[in-house]
Amino acid sequence: MISSATLGLSSHRLPPQPPRCSTPEPNPKSLSEPQGRKHKGSNQLNRWSRARSIRSGRKLDRLHQRTTQRLELNPQVQNPKESENGEASSLTGSDGYDDVEANFGKAIFMVSDGTGWTAEHSVNASLGQFEHCLVDRGCPVNTHLFSGIDDVERLMEIIKQAAKEGAMVVYTLADPSLAEHAKQVCKLWGIPATDILGPITEAIASHLGVLPSGLPRGAPGRNFPLSEDYFRRIEAIEFTIKQDDGALPQNLHKADIVLAGVSRTGKTPLSIYLAQKGYKVANVPIVNGVKLPKSLFEVDPEKVFGLTINPVVLQTIRRARAKSLGFSEEVRSNYSEMDHVREELEFARRTFAQNPVWPVIEVTGKAIEETAAVILRLYHDRKHKCSMPRISKLY
Amino acid sequence: MISSATLGLSSHRLPPQPPRCSTPEPNPKSLSEPQGRKHKGSNQLNRWSRARSIRSGRKLDRLHQRTTQRLELNPQVQNPKESENGEASSLTGSDGYDDVEANFGKAIFMVSDGTGWTAEHSVNASLGQFEHCLVDRGCPVNTHLFSGIDDVERLMEIIKQAAKEGAMVVYTLADPSLAEHAKQVCKLWGIPATDILGPITEAIASHLGVLPSGLPRGAPGRNFPLSEDYFRRIEAIEFTIKQDDGALPQNLHKADIVLAGVSRTGKTPLSIYLAQKGYKVANVPIVNGVKLPKSLFEVDPEKVFGLTINPVVLQTIRRARAKSLGFSEEVRSNYSEMDHVREELEFARRTFAQNPVWPVIEVTGKAIEETAAVILRLYHDRKHKCSMPRISKLY
Repeated sequence: MISSATLGLSSHRLPPQPPRCSTPEPNPKSLSEPQGRKHKGSNQLNRWSRARSIRSGRKLDRLHQRTTQRLELNPQVQNPKESENGEASSLTGSDGYDDVEANFGKAIFMVSDGTGWTAEHSVNASLGQFEHCLVDRGCPVNTHLFSGIDDVERLMEIIKQAAKEGAMVVYTLADPSLAEHAKQVCKLWGIPATDILGPITEAIASHLGVLPSGLPRGAPGRNFPLSEDYFRRIEAIEFTIKQDDGALPQNLHKADIVLAGVSRTGKTPLSIYLAQKGYKVANVPIVNGVKLPKSLFEVDPEKVFGLTINPVVLQTIRRARAKSLGFSEEVRSNYSEMDHVREELEFARRTFAQNPVWPVIEVTGKAIEETAAVILRLYHDRKHKCSMPRISKLY
Repeated sequence: MISSATLGLSSHRLPPQPPRCSTPEPNPKSLSEPQGRKHKGSNQLNRWSRARSIRSGRKLDRLHQRTTQRLELNPQVQNPKESENGEASSLTGSDGYDDVEANFGKAIFMVSDGTGWTAEHSVNASLGQFEHCLVDRGCPVNTHLFSGIDDVERLMEIIKQAAKEGAMVVYTLADPSLAEHAKQVCKLWGIPATDILGPITEAIASHLGVLPSGLPRGAPGRNFPLSEDYFRRIEAIEFTIKQDDGALPQNLHKADIVLAGVSRTGKTPLSIYLAQKGYKVANVPIVNGVKLPKSLFEVDPEKVFGLTINPVVLQTIRRARAKSLGFSEEVRSNYSEMDHVREELEFARRTFAQNPVWPVIEVTGKAIEETAAVILRLYHDRKHKCSMPRISKLY
């Protein structure tokens, strides 16, 4: 197997799997029914959950935990799993998309009173530490994002469902009372839970000597002033889109960063990633036998970055690309056959050698975000020639 | 003041502020000198840091903390602040970019053995809780990102510098020995420190019953397989770029999500944000008096989202836009004058009213990421008609 994805955007895995839908059932022990909404677990869901728990041996642990913690239980609060009485049934759904549970994956519930992107980003980064065991290696994980959860009833409902599905809960709740509620309820029910935003917010509050607002992003009291930053970022994205794939070479001098590389070295997604961080990026394709635009050699060479890649990996990517684009056999082989790939990379290598100021970044095995990190580190180091390289921002 | 930025990409503030460069000085007490690199603090830096500490009263706290913690100090390890003997000097630099410290901002050092994006994302989200007091309200914060820090020497150097600058340290270190080192050293020196990745990784490890790899992203042992996801995401980005601003209306049926709205409702940055999450997005501009493409009314209406905005805010954004594009006076007033703005929004409103299945999203005061969260929530709810709405993924 090719062990690298040059363009892998590992921080945002895809495609988002649709939720496993559940049919409503009567919910015998309602702790705090949601107002105006009906979100209930299904029998099938409970059976799956139970079967999974039994197989994983987790149910026993959970029971033990519950026994221990029952001592401090509020008598009104009972573990929603007690209402389960389903049995293990077939765990294979007809459609992988609609039966996420059928994958035997362990579930992670991400709950936020804002967008939930911080929880998603952190969980994703953390799951990067378990890549050796995820879906291909028999240890699949299903994440479920619940965003905009800003009242206790819906929060409770989700935590109850987490208990049913044997999920762990991670939360980013700006509202301190919601966060405290999540903490207490998870503790009472023996649900593993992690507060993502709380510890760093507390540390910053103490560092600044200022209390946090307790308002999630998008709350009515929050402001998003039309700042210079705002206009600059929009401009960077629009510029980058217009400059994509060698368009408008006369504008290269307006770019902050210029990427040069052969087709399928990830120039476009990398450009877009950098643009979202506020850099105007232009990218220039290197095509064997096609003259590069004169302006590429006229701009400040300190802002040009060459991209290179292992030929075998490149060929694999190009073959998939040619197939998905429906290239004819002839075009396809010209684009992705090894001789052609090697010649084109050699042409790129010579171009880079003639421009020794351009750093050449090996993208093989790097996710987009990693290549971006390397480029920005070099970009800031070169621009500021610091004794201690860093990327600094003012808030 | 207009208190909203419809398009504010609040998760990625911009522009990145270049580091305040320091000239090398002899470093009298070297704990663990970096090998092959010379990164040293400047006298000026120390003076600024000291002055800031004195003004903030933090130095005293820190001293107190140090006294308490000295009891457990390793005798070899001394607080690098002790080597300071500078005095407060002018704190105003000639150039805001190169003198970040001159803003009197409190510093946050973000240290990672990977890309550092998780630390940056979390700190940014957390700083969202302090928007009431940041740069405009006399409580500026400077963040400094140190990525790819994968040996103890460089880690020590940065923590030492954090002590000199009175910074707090947040870290995402996949390597457990590095993380432990950071924790211990910060504790010894009384530097406030937060481990961003550790707690969630530990919780997931315990949930999965699997040990984390301890390898940062991009480490040689890590794999990024050329998965289906990978190709799908690249395709989404490329599709979205090609479809931007109403291009290729004949391809609207290929999009997962179609956005329709008047100019400057944030269609482009929102499309790009969603594309990076793997959705193919097309956007269709609504222009007063211009017929919308027939295909917009032929595609599945459940995937079309209308965007609307407060006219006063829109006018402000358009004025800035017209100015930056150098529109002539005449074009400018046609684009951004209030009568025109209202008429165009009314035209959009009528279009939306005629297509009642399209949800209409009010983007005023929402950052791109928030609008995206609303759209994805609706998108997944509609697609899967679940009793408990969620966005699920399989890892």
